[in-house]
Amino acid sequence: MIKFLNGTLLRFYVKKLSDLGERKAIQLISEILSKGDVAVGIGDDCAAIDMGEEYLLVSTDMISQKTHIPEQMTPFQIGWFIVAINLSDIAAKGGMPLGLVLSFGLPKETSEIFLKELTKGADACATTFDTHIIGGDTKEAGDITICGTAFGVVKKDEFMPRKGTCPDDVVAVTGALGKAGAGHFNLKNKILDEDISKALLEPVPKLKEGRLLAGQKCVTSCMDLSDGLSSSLYQLSELNNVGFEINQSKIPLSSELLQLQKKQCNLNIFDFALHFGGDYELLVTIPKVYFEKIKEILEKNGTDLIAIGKVTREKEIIISIGDEKKTLENKGYEHFKKQFF
Amino acid sequence: MIKFLNGTLLRFYVKKLSDLGERKAIQLISEILSKGDVAVGIGDDCAAIDMGEEYLLVSTDMISQKTHIPEQMTPFQIGWFIVAINLSDIAAKGGMPLGLVLSFGLPKETSEIFLKELTKGADACATTFDTHIIGGDTKEAGDITICGTAFGVVKKDEFMPRKGTCPDDVVAVTGALGKAGAGHFNLKNKILDEDISKALLEPVPKLKEGRLLAGQKCVTSCMDLSDGLSSSLYQLSELNNVGFEINQSKIPLSSELLQLQKKQCNLNIFDFALHFGGDYELLVTIPKVYFEKIKEILEKNGTDLIAIGKVTREKEIIISIGDEKKTLENKGYEHFKKQFF
Repeated sequence: MIKFLNGTLLRFYVKKLSDLGERKAIQLISEILSKGDVAVGIGDDCAAIDMGEEYLLVSTDMISQKTHIPEQMTPFQIGWFIVAINLSDIAAKGGMPLGLVLSFGLPKETSEIFLKELTKGADACATTFDTHIIGGDTKEAGDITICGTAFGVVKKDEFMPRKGTCPDDVVAVTGALGKAGAGHFNLKNKILDEDISKALLEPVPKLKEGRLLAGQKCVTSCMDLSDGLSSSLYQLSELNNVGFEINQSKIPLSSELLQLQKKQCNLNIFDFALHFGGDYELLVTIPKVYFEKIKEILEKNGTDLIAIGKVTREKEIIISIGDEKKTLENKGYEHFKKQFF
Repeated sequence: MIKFLNGTLLRFYVKKLSDLGERKAIQLISEILSKGDVAVGIGDDCAAIDMGEEYLLVSTDMISQKTHIPEQMTPFQIGWFIVAINLSDIAAKGGMPLGLVLSFGLPKETSEIFLKELTKGADACATTFDTHIIGGDTKEAGDITICGTAFGVVKKDEFMPRKGTCPDDVVAVTGALGKAGAGHFNLKNKILDEDISKALLEPVPKLKEGRLLAGQKCVTSCMDLSDGLSSSLYQLSELNNVGFEINQSKIPLSSELLQLQKKQCNLNIFDFALHFGGDYELLVTIPKVYFEKIKEILEKNGTDLIAIGKVTREKEIIISIGDEKKTLENKGYEHFKKQFF
């Protein structure tokens, strides 16, 4: 369709990343790349390399000033955040982290204090989860752009893939949803004085939950909820050729969301819990027969596992609200495309 | 010294990354980070994690449009470059690559064609060196910012550290210097029509040379020349508490540099060979007694090893030009600070 080579006209015909969206861009990349003998490649939370009895897990995540760093985020929180979101991918595969490397792309006017606080935040998150930053790179860049790579190990029979779930499995999450959405709304609209944005700015990777779940060796699929619940369910549906039925009343709502609702009555809190990303809870599917036992084990260890629905044969994602059943829309955030909030 | 909290005045007192430079920034980060039980941490080409008989090597490098990507660089070359410079760090430790992950931070106006070419270039470099891109991240960013992380393995007794050299060791390089400097000068000044900038834009990681050297088990120190010869010698001097005496006439000059000289008579070609980074040859030190044998082994395998000087007891870096001996200045490129070219 490119008929005119004059720059201005050409611009109307060239497909851009804003037309593709993040997931199509990743698909395009995946189609071009040569496949090695990697056990799990692009499209899961981590890549996994066969190391004999174990998999080496590798995950990488980038954030940039323009699109991921709210102006209220302190440099300490930026450092915490980049480590937490990378560890969350290791958690989602049941892994034990071995370490992280970080690359800081920073404008040359960046202050020494900013760099110190950024490093302290990254270090604090890593050490909180018994791991370390073992290397990195510091480069001059136009905008603040930070990239982290986490690596870990998991025994082969404990690895929790994205692909593997079957109809009738229980769908569960490891904690309350809507924390990050509430935090984002609060930052944008300055409704509450107290800091209800902490969960958005300092997320907690569910490493303990991931290890506990993996140890049971019967999780059929797992991913973190960084993209939000609806988007994640659509991704699992596509990959596993199944559908889901989610019971809205079972979805655990975060206290931050309920606090917000008190101040802002007309708020549709389920929009936050269903569609907003950034909560970093784990979304798992577990065969019905094992679910109660596993829930009990997690609770004995002080962590939650909340059933919110089931896997279905029909490739459709249904949300049931009381007696009403309707299709759950896929309204999750996708990079390069417009955000729905 | 910060007496005024008014923004404008404060600016004159806050230390910035442009005051610190890249290496001081890395030192500052290293001082803050908690140390884990990592075998080799910040300050070497790769971090190394103890995995029993082997080390897991991890290296990360970031490039950004503003500071690293000449406008003449094609998207294919950008992709090649980010993979090559990360593999070069694995090469410098004697490692065999296991794979890479890449993060692309791209403006949303980026074309689909750009993304495809970028990916093809990255894939071409990885497969040329028998490895693969196994995962990544694609995010919206203000500027093009690309981060790669390579990982590999090396047997513990074959690992080539930066620290370990002793006085009287031979200093050698694996190939001609000044390729990247000549390419940069050519791009900036458009002196030659033919493409003598290929070595700058499509560097070749010395993985074969790294493995061959490591296999001999007697390299006392090794690093890649990404920062340029003078800067690298100063880094090794500091770390090993030794000095160097380099014989200028022994430095192998690249054909690109000699071509440039023909067109531009007043060019000080040794400035390029001594100070300009981006050649990605390996700089090694080897005990005198083993040097000739190792050189022979490398040459039998079709690769070079050129002695350029020796390690000295006195912590001073000397360049000898005929009978004249003088201190070699440290004029290498450092991020955040002004470039000398």
